[in-house]
Amino acid sequence: MKRIVTFGEIMMRLNPEGYLRFTQAGKWELSYAGGEANVAASLAQFGLDAAFVTKLPRHEIGQSALNECRRYGVDTSLILRGGERLGLYFVEKGASQRASKVIYDRSGSAIALAKPEEFDWNKIFAGADWFHFTGITPALSDNCAAATMEALRTARSLGITVSCDLNFRKKLWTSEKAGRVMGALMPFVDICIANEEDAADVFGIRAEGADVKGGDVRGETYISVAKQLCDRFNFKKAAITLRGSLSASDNNWSAMLYQGGEAFFAPNYRVHIVDRVGGGDSFGAALIYSQLSGWDNQRSINFAAAASCLKHSIEHDFNLISLDEAEALAAGNASGRVQR
Amino acid sequence: MKRIVTFGEIMMRLNPEGYLRFTQAGKWELSYAGGEANVAASLAQFGLDAAFVTKLPRHEIGQSALNECRRYGVDTSLILRGGERLGLYFVEKGASQRASKVIYDRSGSAIALAKPEEFDWNKIFAGADWFHFTGITPALSDNCAAATMEALRTARSLGITVSCDLNFRKKLWTSEKAGRVMGALMPFVDICIANEEDAADVFGIRAEGADVKGGDVRGETYISVAKQLCDRFNFKKAAITLRGSLSASDNNWSAMLYQGGEAFFAPNYRVHIVDRVGGGDSFGAALIYSQLSGWDNQRSINFAAAASCLKHSIEHDFNLISLDEAEALAAGNASGRVQR
Amino acid sequence: MKRIVTFGEIMMRLNPEGYLRFTQAGKWELSYAGGEANVAASLAQFGLDAAFVTKLPRHEIGQSALNECRRYGVDTSLILRGGERLGLYFVEKGASQRASKVIYDRSGSAIALAKPEEFDWNKIFAGADWFHFTGITPALSDNCAAATMEALRTARSLGITVSCDLNFRKKLWTSEKAGRVMGALMPFVDICIANEEDAADVFGIRAEGADVKGGDVRGETYISVAKQLCDRFNFKKAAITLRGSLSASDNNWSAMLYQGGEAFFAPNYRVHIVDRVGGGDSFGAALIYSQLSGWDNQRSINFAAAASCLKHSIEHDFNLISLDEAEALAAGNASGRVQR
Amino acid sequence: MKRIVTFGEIMMRLNPEGYLRFTQAGKWELSYAGGEANVAASLAQFGLDAAFVTKLPRHEIGQSALNECRRYGVDTSLILRGGERLGLYFVEKGASQRASKVIYDRSGSAIALAKPEEFDWNKIFAGADWFHFTGITPALSDNCAAATMEALRTARSLGITVSCDLNFRKKLWTSEKAGRVMGALMPFVDICIANEEDAADVFGIRAEGADVKGGDVRGETYISVAKQLCDRFNFKKAAITLRGSLSASDNNWSAMLYQGGEAFFAPNYRVHIVDRVGGGDSFGAALIYSQLSGWDNQRSINFAAAASCLKHSIEHDFNLISLDEAEALAAGNASGRVQR
Amino acid sequence: MKRIVTFGEIMMRLNPEGYLRFTQAGKWELSYAGGEANVAASLAQFGLDAAFVTKLPRHEIGQSALNECRRYGVDTSLILRGGERLGLYFVEKGASQRASKVIYDRSGSAIALAKPEEFDWNKIFAGADWFHFTGITPALSDNCAAATMEALRTARSLGITVSCDLNFRKKLWTSEKAGRVMGALMPFVDICIANEEDAADVFGIRAEGADVKGGDVRGETYISVAKQLCDRFNFKKAAITLRGSLSASDNNWSAMLYQGGEAFFAPNYRVHIVDRVGGGDSFGAALIYSQLSGWDNQRSINFAAAASCLKHSIEHDFNLISLDEAEALAAGNASGRVQR
Amino acid sequence: MKRIVTFGEIMMRLNPEGYLRFTQAGKWELSYAGGEANVAASLAQFGLDAAFVTKLPRHEIGQSALNECRRYGVDTSLILRGGERLGLYFVEKGASQRASKVIYDRSGSAIALAKPEEFDWNKIFAGADWFHFTGITPALSDNCAAATMEALRTARSLGITVSCDLNFRKKLWTSEKAGRVMGALMPFVDICIANEEDAADVFGIRAEGADVKGGDVRGETYISVAKQLCDRFNFKKAAITLRGSLSASDNNWSAMLYQGGEAFFAPNYRVHIVDRVGGGDSFGAALIYSQLSGWDNQRSINFAAAASCLKHSIEHDFNLISLDEAEALAAGNASGRVQR
Repeated sequence: MKRIVTFGEIMMRLNPEGYLRFTQAGKWELSYAGGEANVAASLAQFGLDAAFVTKLPRHEIGQSALNECRRYGVDTSLILRGGERLGLYFVEKGASQRASKVIYDRSGSAIALAKPEEFDWNKIFAGADWFHFTGITPALSDNCAAATMEALRTARSLGITVSCDLNFRKKLWTSEKAGRVMGALMPFVDICIANEEDAADVFGIRAEGADVKGGDVRGETYISVAKQLCDRFNFKKAAITLRGSLSASDNNWSAMLYQGGEAFFAPNYRVHIVDRVGGGDSFGAALIYSQLSGWDNQRSINFAAAASCLKHSIEHDFNLISLDEAEALAAGNASGRVQR
Repeated sequence: MKRIVTFGEIMMRLNPEGYLRFTQAGKWELSYAGGEANVAASLAQFGLDAAFVTKLPRHEIGQSALNECRRYGVDTSLILRGGERLGLYFVEKGASQRASKVIYDRSGSAIALAKPEEFDWNKIFAGADWFHFTGITPALSDNCAAATMEALRTARSLGITVSCDLNFRKKLWTSEKAGRVMGALMPFVDICIANEEDAADVFGIRAEGADVKGGDVRGETYISVAKQLCDRFNFKKAAITLRGSLSASDNNWSAMLYQGGEAFFAPNYRVHIVDRVGGGDSFGAALIYSQLSGWDNQRSINFAAAASCLKHSIEHDFNLISLDEAEALAAGNASGRVQR
Repeated sequence: MKRIVTFGEIMMRLNPEGYLRFTQAGKWELSYAGGEANVAASLAQFGLDAAFVTKLPRHEIGQSALNECRRYGVDTSLILRGGERLGLYFVEKGASQRASKVIYDRSGSAIALAKPEEFDWNKIFAGADWFHFTGITPALSDNCAAATMEALRTARSLGITVSCDLNFRKKLWTSEKAGRVMGALMPFVDICIANEEDAADVFGIRAEGADVKGGDVRGETYISVAKQLCDRFNFKKAAITLRGSLSASDNNWSAMLYQGGEAFFAPNYRVHIVDRVGGGDSFGAALIYSQLSGWDNQRSINFAAAASCLKHSIEHDFNLISLDEAEALAAGNASGRVQR
Repeated sequence: MKRIVTFGEIMMRLNPEGYLRFTQAGKWELSYAGGEANVAASLAQFGLDAAFVTKLPRHEIGQSALNECRRYGVDTSLILRGGERLGLYFVEKGASQRASKVIYDRSGSAIALAKPEEFDWNKIFAGADWFHFTGITPALSDNCAAATMEALRTARSLGITVSCDLNFRKKLWTSEKAGRVMGALMPFVDICIANEEDAADVFGIRAEGADVKGGDVRGETYISVAKQLCDRFNFKKAAITLRGSLSASDNNWSAMLYQGGEAFFAPNYRVHIVDRVGGGDSFGAALIYSQLSGWDNQRSINFAAAASCLKHSIEHDFNLISLDEAEALAAGNASGRVQR
Repeated sequence: MKRIVTFGEIMMRLNPEGYLRFTQAGKWELSYAGGEANVAASLAQFGLDAAFVTKLPRHEIGQSALNECRRYGVDTSLILRGGERLGLYFVEKGASQRASKVIYDRSGSAIALAKPEEFDWNKIFAGADWFHFTGITPALSDNCAAATMEALRTARSLGITVSCDLNFRKKLWTSEKAGRVMGALMPFVDICIANEEDAADVFGIRAEGADVKGGDVRGETYISVAKQLCDRFNFKKAAITLRGSLSASDNNWSAMLYQGGEAFFAPNYRVHIVDRVGGGDSFGAALIYSQLSGWDNQRSINFAAAASCLKHSIEHDFNLISLDEAEALAAGNASGRVQR
Repeated sequence: MKRIVTFGEIMMRLNPEGYLRFTQAGKWELSYAGGEANVAASLAQFGLDAAFVTKLPRHEIGQSALNECRRYGVDTSLILRGGERLGLYFVEKGASQRASKVIYDRSGSAIALAKPEEFDWNKIFAGADWFHFTGITPALSDNCAAATMEALRTARSLGITVSCDLNFRKKLWTSEKAGRVMGALMPFVDICIANEEDAADVFGIRAEGADVKGGDVRGETYISVAKQLCDRFNFKKAAITLRGSLSASDNNWSAMLYQGGEAFFAPNYRVHIVDRVGGGDSFGAALIYSQLSGWDNQRSINFAAAASCLKHSIEHDFNLISLDEAEALAAGNASGRVQR
């Protein structure tokens, strides 16, 4: 079985029940999530051996985050314990014209304060085939950025394939700093995942003619983004997700995989949203799965788009979709008929 | 008041709250349902005297199933008590491209193990005007099939009108066995209810040109199914429901009633789904109501389609729609404006 | 800061969880709402000094209603205490073709039985810039009608601007009585808010060519309603809300502001409904806000339509939308993209 | 099977979840209850044919009250429909030194406004062996008092045994009026049920030396109450319940049955309270059951005390205890060991 | 009406439903609380004009904390807005031998990072009669300690009475630092509230012969603690709470008020615990109330002990007990009988 | 780290919220549990390497059972997949005099139908130090009994210590069959765990003078049970749990460990029950832990009694108590004071 390692932060996620606003709710749903943990959880559902690396406080809140990963089959044996707090974030589900809101409260978390030397990457990567991180990890702290760099160097030395989802978070760092730090990490990356905004925010790379606020997905114009990314950083492949936000309740969703001048487009999905947080992570996970499966680019992007389309119908961040379900949708069965 | 008797299984139904997946949920909604119980409950809402015949364990779980029928006005005085277990099934509500899932755990239930001689059909049918069953009942066990045959013979001898919803369940029996057993029961049936898939699965009857997986409802092609059914089994009427599954969240829904070469189509409804389990049963119930009311075929099919359209907006299986509500929709008021 | 006083009834609101019907639910959500309280709450979210005048029983249920206003920033210091009961109403949320239902149980409430002399309007209006009421208040009882008249006379004498939302409730009075009582109050009103049905039910004023049951919003035809209202009662301005009910789940929503022969139309919003009760009140509040802000008519109606569009995405009656959120939508950002 | 008829009011009962106060709760539990409905429901659990007579609004809230009775096996076929509202009451569960609170909102209910001539007692009592009412019913309105008198005259003429639970409600009437009205009804009563406070409040009958506020149950002193009741009204038997309130969480509970100078005491139970509302009603029901079973006085009082002891462990008013469970406790098994 | 100002932190409080452990819960109850906010809320329930001073982030989570204070009648007009985060803490309710657990995550909160000069104490104290703080406030940060000192100097200059609850939090500072900082603040304090452990932890003051871990409350030995406190810091009065922890479910609870060599003891209460967090704060509030009411020392301590006894029966931190309820218990009515 | 293997069934557990009866509840809590899974979960909380062996259906319900084990750190890699159904049981929580109820629906489960040859015990026991089973496993089916025998033979050959909890289930087999089958397994057992009833039901071994129904725990009389067990089957040690059921809410709980004629008694705990299902399993787990830790008999039994005492305060079957918590109670800290 293929083994993947992801590295980053997992947080407590708090959201009011249903469509209640932050200021209304008395009962909240509590789950645990974070970009790289989401990817690991999704890959574990597909049946791979996925390990998540982070640092968690020893107290019961930290333990609960670990337990949630373990519950869904993620290997948690590499997680460091210590530090004071678990980062957290609040999610308010939007509907119709009212946007979803996310409030972060993540500074000073155990992982953000972890020192680079706490991670023994040679041990961590034992048996690993793939390493994945996102732009959030180096944004957490300079220590995390340094640890990521060390991880990348080790991965390179061990011949491990590396993927990165740019995932820009403006609350964590500026575009300027992101560009500088991420720019130094990119040479170690084989496959880059981004959406149009990330590419612009982090590297100033822009496609012409795209209107990401409107509901129209005109993916063709994104080829130039992918091309620029690959050209600048020598990525083997670049994948772009394409979200057309019709409203907080309905989105268009598609994706493109680019390699060597060729672009492979997935079909567009019109999704009725249950919970869209984690949508991008589910795409990254499925793309990794398809690459590790040796599928061709068209099949890869179709699978990744289908799996992440399905994420939008699932509560909380983890994409609890099986291989069969994602493949069935990729094969064209979008009718949603009852499975008995 | 007209009296209807239905015969079959009622199960515990377990579904996670909202759109949570089976593997996520800690709190579940628990209700009680089953094809023939659903029909009885719906008819009781319309104000008829509807009795449900089954066998239930004496313990509190069995009692709860009985109580749920009683709560909604179903006559439960004919229910046998005994046996070990109540069948159950798990429902996971789908959304958008993610299909709903149903997992059955019904083998060995009290009704499946009941012996034909436990049912005294002459007593059961005292005062009854109509008898309804579905293809699920004889599929539960050979005993149930024998009991159904005995019920049909008695109904015929008493001049009671009989309706049957084909309702094929591939987990319960093969198409081959279904065809054989149901084929023997059909001569006692006056009105047959089916969808295209049931007709194909049970009797190998197929309409040309229909694409039930797509979202398009092209009802005209179903006339041939109804005609074949009537021709083969000498049904007085055959009703076909037409579901176009656009996604797990949105369906088209319509229906047709066929008699003597003439087909009567209900309007098509585009439904935004709250819970679609029990949709077919609600159609059957409304059709029985309209027939017992002596309505003409067009009014009958319009009412049945409207009542079952409304079922899709109601949680759990029972179609808790009043006569007034169904008639208002059948009369064309689909605006959903607030009733104060 | 501008100060607004509203006068009317606040009730306990009871609704089943989710889409459960009245007859199904074991757990209910309990909130507190009423036309004029909703307006005050909405204005408090926009940052104004909004006071709500009513009478509430001294017991804990009355106190809870007061607390809910206070929680959201409404000035409750003018509320009288005494009487026996709080009115209440039951809300069943509809979906798709199934309409929402409201059952009122409000007779004999503390406010309905309050005597006109209990309200010292000169004191109540100290510091106030605006007074708002709806057609529900005088409909509660003859005492309430007399108190409203007294309030209006005092407001006029103090130079306070007055707005009224016609809000006809056929369960409370007849069209005939409404026309008579409201007709006497209208000369004191500066700005009238209505929908087409209210204008017809209360004053027999009808627009030609409008079809309020269908899903089509053809606002142009409403100009004649506004013009007739202004002409008959000498209103400075009249605002008309335009709801096109496609289904209980989806509506079109727009509005028009009319002044001196000129009509200003807001864009039409297609809304996917979370909870539409209180939609009209949220419009009134936003219109008052825009008028107090000295905005021109086009900006005013755009803001009012946007704020009330957003209400449809919020559970319960209070429109818990901030100024920023309403302005962003009025400025055209309807994409519902996640705000991080 | 013995048939019992009870007559009175059923209300909507609203209580916050768990131990939340009225002013805290957002989600409430909604059930339906009332003294005489509680008695009917309890008797139905024991397997008798229990019918409840009242009047309920036709709307869904009235229907839900009826459904709740029906669910638990109460014959609801005698219930009149009509009127505007269902009475309701709010229950806040106390704990430790904090007392439970009940707020009533029941005036103007359908049953309170029902006219005596709406009830055809000869029809209602067809097949009945027993009639039960409480002091609440005549307190609802003069109409209800008149209807009760008519019921009693008819019961007497038909030779039906009559029981009455004094159940004084000071919010509904004064002691003076209660004494007068109840005094006129008592000559038709065979078995009187009361606690010490009721006897004092309604008829000014007091036991010496009893301290009902303290935690001590000194039942012997209640004999004089029972004797005075029997002497004044010629009851065949009088039953007295004895509650010692140690705190809102813990009570002592016992009872005595008196006949012809002899007093039969049940053992004292120390109860840890889940929900004590309906405790008295459950006693009355069990006493009726034991009398209809022809049990001797000692067995009767033991059974009634045991059944009502168990009520204190059950949420909401209905005493959902089976015959077996009550008999097991009456036989001395109070260990609460798990039943597998 | 008397006006009280309290100063400190309010946090988000998160607790699993019921008795679920941290690692089990999927749904959590979310409320807002903190020592000084709890005192203000309790005083507002008694009908006083209580203002709470803190600093809260502008986002919706900060707003929700403000709203919760406002909901229960606390004057929030003095609250500063700004900063990044709201502190939070997790509460796991214990039972029987399993202790309750509290995990704090409060560092870096808006109030902890607020600068002393942000608070204009002369303005804040306009109209105030009393100022209350606890040992938590100066422990939050050196800035908070400085702000507290400034508040105390201003209060002294304005002749405002000052109370302080020692409330030692070992996670926030050491005993050594607490002793030093608190020692400097004490000279400005009129009334000191403490339990035995606080006095020992902060000032090294110990009573002989007391065993606070056992279930026995032997209050007499606490007189020496109060005497030492008063002697060292020249307090007018010192109040000591006495908790005897029998288990997580059952406690003894009492208190003593000491003045000029005389000690006044409240009765001991055996409490069955619903939620004991905030118990000490509720005592402080009630003591302030009784002092402001001019009651003698015995009545004061009886009232304070009774009010705080009742807190143990209430979910979450705020002591939502009315004046009447506390006085009834202080007068000796502890029977918990239902109030109708 | 020590490795333990347990073998048996895990079921879905369904219980109504709070104290609702089976017939009342609409929402149920769903968890997964079973005697041997409970032991493994408890040992994983203590930090050991605990593996659970069973067979689970491949569907999502089976997966959820596996996930729940994994979540709490149990090694699930040895679990077989296949078969049709997961057994389930319903738990109704009792209170006061009302007993808890358990209804099983477990026949035909995947594990009950598993064949002995599906288990490769040599592989399963790789690295294991201890094997634990209970009397439930061989009672599930003859296949399971044969598999257990095979497991025991292999364990003996590998020198693995074996413990067995007699755990008689009268719904699964007769005393006669239990005695015969268990009698054949006992020679392979090193440590036997039982309560007095198990010893009597399975082997007809009885202590004189004990009254297990009453609330009194008189452990001394149980020595003869332990002695008889050890004498007959040559156990190294026998542990007896002693439950005194005062009511469904309050129990006495203690235990004894017997070896070579010497008996070691734990203190008695008076427990206020949150959920007592799984209490015995938590005792077995803690005893295994203490034995693997090499503790002497007194420390062992003290720890086992303390850990299982704490189980009674935890919802659902798994004893989610940490080593520290159990040791603190074993060391005498039973005060339940808040841990901050």
